[in-house]
Amino acid sequence: MPKNPDTGNKPLDVLRNSAEKNVLVDVKGNRGYSGILEGNDVYMNLVLRNASEIINGEAKSFHNRILVRGDNVIYVSPSKGDDQ
Amino acid sequence: MPKNPDTGNKPLDVLRNSAEKNVLVDVKGNRGYSGILEGNDVYMNLVLRNASEIINGEAKSFHNRILVRGDNVIYVSPSKGDDQ
Amino acid sequence: MPKNPDTGNKPLDVLRNSAEKNVLVDVKGNRGYSGILEGNDVYMNLVLRNASEIINGEAKSFHNRILVRGDNVIYVSPSKGDDQ
Amino acid sequence: MPKNPDTGNKPLDVLRNSAEKNVLVDVKGNRGYSGILEGNDVYMNLVLRNASEIINGEAKSFHNRILVRGDNVIYVSPSKGDDQ
Amino acid sequence: MPKNPDTGNKPLDVLRNSAEKNVLVDVKGNRGYSGILEGNDVYMNLVLRNASEIINGEAKSFHNRILVRGDNVIYVSPSKGDDQ
Amino acid sequence: MPKNPDTGNKPLDVLRNSAEKNVLVDVKGNRGYSGILEGNDVYMNLVLRNASEIINGEAKSFHNRILVRGDNVIYVSPSKGDDQ
Amino acid sequence: MPKNPDTGNKPLDVLRNSAEKNVLVDVKGNRGYSGILEGNDVYMNLVLRNASEIINGEAKSFHNRILVRGDNVIYVSPSKGDDQ
Repeated sequence: MPKNPDTGNKPLDVLRNSAEKNVLVDVKGNRGYSGILEGNDVYMNLVLRNASEIINGEAKSFHNRILVRGDNVIYVSPSKGDDQ
Repeated sequence: MPKNPDTGNKPLDVLRNSAEKNVLVDVKGNRGYSGILEGNDVYMNLVLRNASEIINGEAKSFHNRILVRGDNVIYVSPSKGDDQ
Repeated sequence: MPKNPDTGNKPLDVLRNSAEKNVLVDVKGNRGYSGILEGNDVYMNLVLRNASEIINGEAKSFHNRILVRGDNVIYVSPSKGDDQ
Repeated sequence: MPKNPDTGNKPLDVLRNSAEKNVLVDVKGNRGYSGILEGNDVYMNLVLRNASEIINGEAKSFHNRILVRGDNVIYVSPSKGDDQ
Repeated sequence: MPKNPDTGNKPLDVLRNSAEKNVLVDVKGNRGYSGILEGNDVYMNLVLRNASEIINGEAKSFHNRILVRGDNVIYVSPSKGDDQ
Repeated sequence: MPKNPDTGNKPLDVLRNSAEKNVLVDVKGNRGYSGILEGNDVYMNLVLRNASEIINGEAKSFHNRILVRGDNVIYVSPSKGDDQ
Repeated sequence: MPKNPDTGNKPLDVLRNSAEKNVLVDVKGNRGYSGILEGNDVYMNLVLRNASEIINGEAKSFHNRILVRGDNVIYVSPSKGDDQ
């Protein structure tokens, strides 16, 4: 993937540019959340829609909407198809 | 669930929009609290009413009212029927 | 328990409304403290009177007065009879 | 112990009222310190005099004077005879 | 490698000087991320492009773009060929 | 040891009064540092001279000078002979 | 080693006085970094040059330049030959 001059490269820009796109959020304790990013704040608190919780690699529960506390986040990765 | 233009998508909006609705609060240490969200503050401290404590997936104790410290929160998920 | 319009629903209101009433304070490390809430500050540091320390579910020691540091608090639950 | 109208009930008042009295300080990691409280600051850093360190319930070492960092404190309990 | 007078030696300068170069980011929990540093902020939140996640020394997953939360960072090491 | 009216009893005073005297610094992870306190700041970062690192009760390494980060400190105890 | 009147004894002075000298940085998780200190900031983030990572006492990897996050630091010790 070449450098994309149209994409912000500051951490919060990555979140803004991922709004309404699929992201994978990895948190402490071998958990992750995969869903559509609805919003965030500067503390990296994140709101996901249509989200699956993934524990030790397996999808465990579905959440129409979920607020994930930023403290626990290890990384946020925009999904491949949506990261342009 | 389609994008809902009437629903705030900032993290604190999700809490405000969940007032007086059922939420599931997951905290560190394999615990959760399920009840009606009465209030919150910007630290994500939460007040629940008619709340069950869930430890390792089992309901353990009932609390008329409980104040959960925000520090420990991993996620807050509005209950399906109430998340519109 | 129906919604109580006379009860504050902000986290610190719950503490203020519980002054001089029995509360159960759960802290990290499988410990809890049950006693009469004498006071608190905005950090959730709590003063209890006539308090029992509960470790792994068993009452272990009695304290005429005890100051519990807010950092460690998981939840504060007003006792059922006192939570009106 | 009845409510004592002459005793402050704010967390830092408990420390101030315990100056020059015996206190038990419980800290993380199954340790405690029992001694005379000489002073404190708002971070709950504490100075004890004639203090014993207690590890897993046994007195282990004696300190003429010891500064305990507030970060680690779980609770401070004035000794029974001194808590009036 | 001799001292390089043209290279900043303040921590944030190292990040700025590594922009668009390969870095290895080691985080807590035996994980690392190797990729091209796109951006950072003062909290050491980092954006990497073409990044591999490395768990216990093995490359595990590939991310077109990934935002790694600064809280978890242990070190950032510019790759050898790029660190001049 | 009687109360010493000439000794400050605020936590930072204990550090100031221990300058150029032997102290034992206990830190998280079953480690300690014993040496002459050269300096400190308000974060309880400490500089020791002629310091031994003590791990699980045994002296392990010697440091001419060592800067111990305050975050990790559990307690600072002036050595008996120097604590007057 | 006698008291050195020409050496600052404040924690950040120790870092400033160690610039371009060998230091050993011990961090949480049984790791250390040994190299030439290029720079630091007030958060104790450190830049080392020609650094070896030491895990459980063994040198594991070499880094031309490495930025170690201050949060994780337990101590910084100037190397013996350089600490005058």
